[in-house]
Amino acid sequence: MGTSAGVVAVTGGAGGPFDWIGAERERLRRAGLVRELRPRAAAEAGGADGLLDLAGNDYLGLARHPEVVAAAIAAATRWGAGATGSRLVSGSTALHTELEEELAAFTGFERALVFSSGYVANLAALTALGGREALIVSDAANHASLIDGCRLSRSRIAVAAHADPPAVAKALADREPALRRALAVSDTVFSVDGNAAPLSGLADAARAHGAALVLDDAHGFGVLGEGGRGAAAPAGLAGAPDVVVTVTLSKALGSQGGAVLGPAAVIDHLLNTARTFIFDTGLAPAAAGAALGALRLLRREPWRPAGARDAARALHRRLTAAGLSAARPDAAVVSVRAPSPEAAVRWAADCRRAAVAVACFRPPSVPDGVSRLRLSARADLSAAQLGEAVRTIVATAPAPYDGPPGPPGPPGPGA
Amino acid sequence: MGTSAGVVAVTGGAGGPFDWIGAERERLRRAGLVRELRPRAAAEAGGADGLLDLAGNDYLGLARHPEVVAAAIAAATRWGAGATGSRLVSGSTALHTELEEELAAFTGFERALVFSSGYVANLAALTALGGREALIVSDAANHASLIDGCRLSRSRIAVAAHADPPAVAKALADREPALRRALAVSDTVFSVDGNAAPLSGLADAARAHGAALVLDDAHGFGVLGEGGRGAAAPAGLAGAPDVVVTVTLSKALGSQGGAVLGPAAVIDHLLNTARTFIFDTGLAPAAAGAALGALRLLRREPWRPAGARDAARALHRRLTAAGLSAARPDAAVVSVRAPSPEAAVRWAADCRRAAVAVACFRPPSVPDGVSRLRLSARADLSAAQLGEAVRTIVATAPAPYDGPPGPPGPPGPGA
Ligand SMILES: Cc1ncc(COP(=O)(O)O)c(C=O)c1O
Ligand SMILES: Cc1ncc(COP(=O)(O)O)c(C=O)c1O
Repeated sequence: MGTSAGVVAVTGGAGGPFDWIGAERERLRRAGLVRELRPRAAAEAGGADGLLDLAGNDYLGLARHPEVVAAAIAAATRWGAGATGSRLVSGSTALHTELEEELAAFTGFERALVFSSGYVANLAALTALGGREALIVSDAANHASLIDGCRLSRSRIAVAAHADPPAVAKALADREPALRRALAVSDTVFSVDGNAAPLSGLADAARAHGAALVLDDAHGFGVLGEGGRGAAAPAGLAGAPDVVVTVTLSKALGSQGGAVLGPAAVIDHLLNTARTFIFDTGLAPAAAGAALGALRLLRREPWRPAGARDAARALHRRLTAAGLSAARPDAAVVSVRAPSPEAAVRWAADCRRAAVAVACFRPPSVPDGVSRLRLSARADLSAAQLGEAVRTIVATAPAPYDGPPGPPGPPGPGA
Repeated sequence: MGTSAGVVAVTGGAGGPFDWIGAERERLRRAGLVRELRPRAAAEAGGADGLLDLAGNDYLGLARHPEVVAAAIAAATRWGAGATGSRLVSGSTALHTELEEELAAFTGFERALVFSSGYVANLAALTALGGREALIVSDAANHASLIDGCRLSRSRIAVAAHADPPAVAKALADREPALRRALAVSDTVFSVDGNAAPLSGLADAARAHGAALVLDDAHGFGVLGEGGRGAAAPAGLAGAPDVVVTVTLSKALGSQGGAVLGPAAVIDHLLNTARTFIFDTGLAPAAAGAALGALRLLRREPWRPAGARDAARALHRRLTAAGLSAARPDAAVVSVRAPSPEAAVRWAADCRRAAVAVACFRPPSVPDGVSRLRLSARADLSAAQLGEAVRTIVATAPAPYDGPPGPPGPPGPGA
């Protein structure tokens, strides 16, 4: 069969091997769950597309900070546009090392290892520390990248009820003897509802059963802890020999990339065995430089994290006072419930027409079935901007607003 | 149990939950397989650390090209240091759209979707197109990211002998009826030995059994095909309705990121369902800009790919003439066999001392057990540099050189 004949046969014949996708797409459409890319058209106004940006995760307002952009530019100028190879071959520069040293020093961990994204940092931590001899106890609301890390690691997985240390302790206690190692794994701040994990309880549960604790601090790093050192520090877990923390460089630091923080032996083990480290091109110099620039700026301006948290609390206070159903924020994420996926999509679109960009979370990103508007507070929101955001969100709320009653249930993995 | 008491108990007590890592590390050390980061100290001399760079995958010499660096800088200046959110929330800019349109047009596919790395592009393609109802037939030498994609997808996996279309056809023919879909998956150029996959044979095998073909063109894109359009074009597979190609932006384009190319319905399906797209921050503007700048430069300077291929063939010819055992290169990768992991490490170190940077591949990156020096040819290597590289590699070869005899066997997944 010739190649072009083959193409013709596939298009004109009994149907191609991707025909099933049409039915999938129709199912999504009927459920109101089709997603679309809406590229931003310009960055001029300091916001997304000239809009007031409550959608992105630029919690400290650093992604477009002149100093951070200048650090990206300096790095690209000095080191080139790409890392050119995996970190162990040609992809490590002195800049990557500096970033790793300063991340470790800032967060209080022995060492740090930088990855091309927070997603693959999570895959690395769980695949290198889990395995066929390991039990991983994973919070039901953990982020997709942690769930994928669990799956890839070939560990035995126990999903524990959301934010429930006794459930974690029970799953660890029930571990089969053949499973010689155990990890408890949790987001520190859950990405959908913005609620914090009960870190001390999780640490006690893990320690009572000889398990390590792996925390994804994507939404805590730069927002929680003294000067933004992250969620582990106030819980007394920074630098603990049995704790590993992952962070992303793409949210509070306004750049791209991720890192794993932990004891030197753990980092060395990741470097030697983690497939998403060994077989992935190193983080681009511009992204490493921007993250380092943002980290240094954060050390000089330690008030920024409190600004983001205050803005989140103000948003929550004023939205709930206006009758909307929102979870109390523990960091910079405010989640507002919508009555249905369709209503959430319309609500977000109405906000956007009124020049306020908000994120819309729908199934399957929220497996509890409750669609939400997700608002990110930023340290650099002015009082006027906060007021404008609240007025717009309240004015465009589905009328009569009938979000599901009661406190939000456990969220699912979210972006 | 108080937190600090817990820490003390772990360090001073019966042993911490990471103690098993010490034994792992000792096992690696005894096998001569410990890896170390060797950061580059300066980029001035246009090479890695002032060395002649045959280690990185900057095949076209674009990572430090002034025009590509300028495109990175312009993008960071205009759009900021980071994308600020996932592509579906705030992380798509007009730049990402332009890059996707130009990638699709250049390679001849209907649409393209850009990811934060080639690694997660592969995870996305296989998880979104595979699944519990799918059989994936995967080449035994496929890259780690394809293997991880197979695992994550929960598909039934059949590993086919390396570069063996009849083996792929047999695995597809043996498919259980319950597996309603099938994919054949292969690197186009295998990353360890640099040999090309038998694309026409694979396409025929897939089509004879109603399977789709997924090709990872990480080492073919920018190197093979007219003007660097990739391996699919000369095989008559570009734009075929049953073919999906993944590429990385981190090798020939000298930047960071990855993309999936394929029929519009497939790309739309990925956008709606692929977890490493939905739950990952968008590619940083600087990286998207650099990739776009490199792509435009490649269109204007279509001679670059042939330069990389010619350099690889010259390296191979001269190294084998000097008695070394190297696989014939089909693209820009030249792989030279070493007698043992220790000898390979020493050989690479000796080259480095003589100012030539080469990569050293050892188990477990080469599950056939054969350690190798891996050389990347570049379009911008001068005749003098080629000569210097050959002289250095030959002069530092383990003496007496006793690489395993005969043609190289199937390589394992490599970086
Ligand atoms: C909790 C959490 N972990 C990990 C990630 C992945 O980080 P990145 O986007 O840097 O890949 C995200 C979001 O993107 C997240 O929300
Ligand atoms: C064949 C192959 N596929 C995929 C990748 C991953 O691409 P990236 O480094 O852009 O994540 C690589 C190397 O890194 C590779 O060699």
